[in-house]
Amino acid sequence: MKKLINDPASVVLEKLQGLALAHADLLKVHFDPVFVVRAAAPVMDKVGILSGGGSGHEPLHCGFVGVGMLDAACPGAIFTSPTPDQILEATKSIYHDAGVLYLVKNYTGDVLNFEMAAELAAEEGLTVAVELIDDDVSVEKGPATAGRRGVGTTVFAEKICGAAAEAGLNLPAVAALCRKVNGWSRSMGMALTSCTVPHVGKPTFELGAGEMEMGIGIHGEPGRRRVPLAMADEITEMLTLPILNDLPFKPGDAVIAMVNGMGGTPLGELYIVYRKLAEILHKHDITIARTLVGNYITALEMAGTSITLLKTDAELLKLWDAPVKTPALHWGM
Amino acid sequence: MKKLINDPASVVLEKLQGLALAHADLLKVHFDPVFVVRAAAPVMDKVGILSGGGSGHEPLHCGFVGVGMLDAACPGAIFTSPTPDQILEATKSIYHDAGVLYLVKNYTGDVLNFEMAAELAAEEGLTVAVELIDDDVSVEKGPATAGRRGVGTTVFAEKICGAAAEAGLNLPAVAALCRKVNGWSRSMGMALTSCTVPHVGKPTFELGAGEMEMGIGIHGEPGRRRVPLAMADEITEMLTLPILNDLPFKPGDAVIAMVNGMGGTPLGELYIVYRKLAEILHKHDITIARTLVGNYITALEMAGTSITLLKTDAELLKLWDAPVKTPALHWGM
Repeated sequence: MKKLINDPASVVLEKLQGLALAHADLLKVHFDPVFVVRAAAPVMDKVGILSGGGSGHEPLHCGFVGVGMLDAACPGAIFTSPTPDQILEATKSIYHDAGVLYLVKNYTGDVLNFEMAAELAAEEGLTVAVELIDDDVSVEKGPATAGRRGVGTTVFAEKICGAAAEAGLNLPAVAALCRKVNGWSRSMGMALTSCTVPHVGKPTFELGAGEMEMGIGIHGEPGRRRVPLAMADEITEMLTLPILNDLPFKPGDAVIAMVNGMGGTPLGELYIVYRKLAEILHKHDITIARTLVGNYITALEMAGTSITLLKTDAELLKLWDAPVKTPALHWGM
Repeated sequence: MKKLINDPASVVLEKLQGLALAHADLLKVHFDPVFVVRAAAPVMDKVGILSGGGSGHEPLHCGFVGVGMLDAACPGAIFTSPTPDQILEATKSIYHDAGVLYLVKNYTGDVLNFEMAAELAAEEGLTVAVELIDDDVSVEKGPATAGRRGVGTTVFAEKICGAAAEAGLNLPAVAALCRKVNGWSRSMGMALTSCTVPHVGKPTFELGAGEMEMGIGIHGEPGRRRVPLAMADEITEMLTLPILNDLPFKPGDAVIAMVNGMGGTPLGELYIVYRKLAEILHKHDITIARTLVGNYITALEMAGTSITLLKTDAELLKLWDAPVKTPALHWGM
């Protein structure tokens, strides 16, 4: 295991210490229990936006705390849900009469713990709403599974709900926007390599030199299928067509498109994927209105990529373009 | 070799096609010869800032083309200098009476070709100045070498000279600023893994499971020494102390600090390095005025990091904070 870490047991703590030191103008870290809030929290007269989940997906979620996006983020251990008490304390630290919205990726532990935190908050008289993100088309819907995983759409939901809260929308309206974003957005990912959880010390799964995993999750969960290594254009097609067919996206649609790196893939390769994605969408008469190309929701040092497409309209575009100032997204201010 | 590419021979071309498609609002790509210019080039009434070098270091240089930074970038083949004719054509495409400044990393091929391009430009009556970046403290100065390599300081020079040009400074003044930045800035890097040049198909060098390379260059050139794998805090110290001693940085100095990823290292690990860097600088009574943590000057999918420190003052800080809008740096607008 070759990593720039010290003790595997202190990886999350030290990442957060580094984050706090590097971005003291934007955020601060509370260490017991652990959560990240804006430097100026609580921000008055707006809905508080709170997200969180296992660590190892940086910059998600802590790197999206700041003006125009999250008010707070609760990082768990690597690939492990944060606990209800963490979430409750973070909620209190950002709480204001306008209430708080939890944006939760659809994983059993996350859903359980965020819902428990919401109950505890309600018992203390706090108004909290919970919205789930479940955009991963590589998981089939049905009674046999816990539903689809929440992946790339989380970035879009955090940006758009963050902007809506900043614009003064009330809690039901911001929650409704989250459902709109989740309803209109789909993702799929793939891996060229596995990743290694620090305290485990060996790769989560083995992948041969000539193999890749299509439909991978962001924790190295099994994908749809293990297939022979293919060229970037074929891989892009294998990711994009299931996304397009699932919503389905239609000719004339405009989208916000993200080509996301899994952590160990260099930026140049993501642009090669973007090139083919743009070609495919053009053929389907779908317009790309805005783009994100880079590492936004990762799986430690995994090599691979995911694509997320969000059908968009004037309302979503306006919120997307609104100013944001966080460690990982920064424009308009 | 596991990469998200198609034909190794078309990697650079396809990256640039993707870049152009993803950021048509900011830049456009000219394909024969190959160079990237701002969407609105030429920009009148300002010095043109042009940089370039081998590909494989993305987002450097092409990802820094845009308002407040570069007017043009000339990408060579992977880890290979651009040619004089490329540079000359890019120069013409951005040329205005205020002249053009070439920002050149100190590698033999780059220096030769940019200087030849400057001569060709002069023959055509164009005013061009050339400034070198040679900030890598892992290379000893002396007659036996081609001098120090240009690494992380290039990012700082492109941002600050870009802002100065935007503010209307003339060519000698912008060139002087580049010398100031280069004179006040030092870098050092290390690698946990090698990288693989696509058309070569095998790693540039071999590194054992328990080894790392200190003082690595951005093309996988040998470093100062190969040593046993160490913890992040020790690695950070091994990078920071030579930097501090070289300038030397002094108690009371303020710096812009970059913790840069080599391409395959996840963001979370870079924050662990930043944490220790901040501690070391605090002990030396050096203030961190601004930070960059992320992948800015990379070596394909190499795992590793580099640290760059730029001594700063009110003039440099003001230029650093000036608005910038490029694919890879974006703030204030």
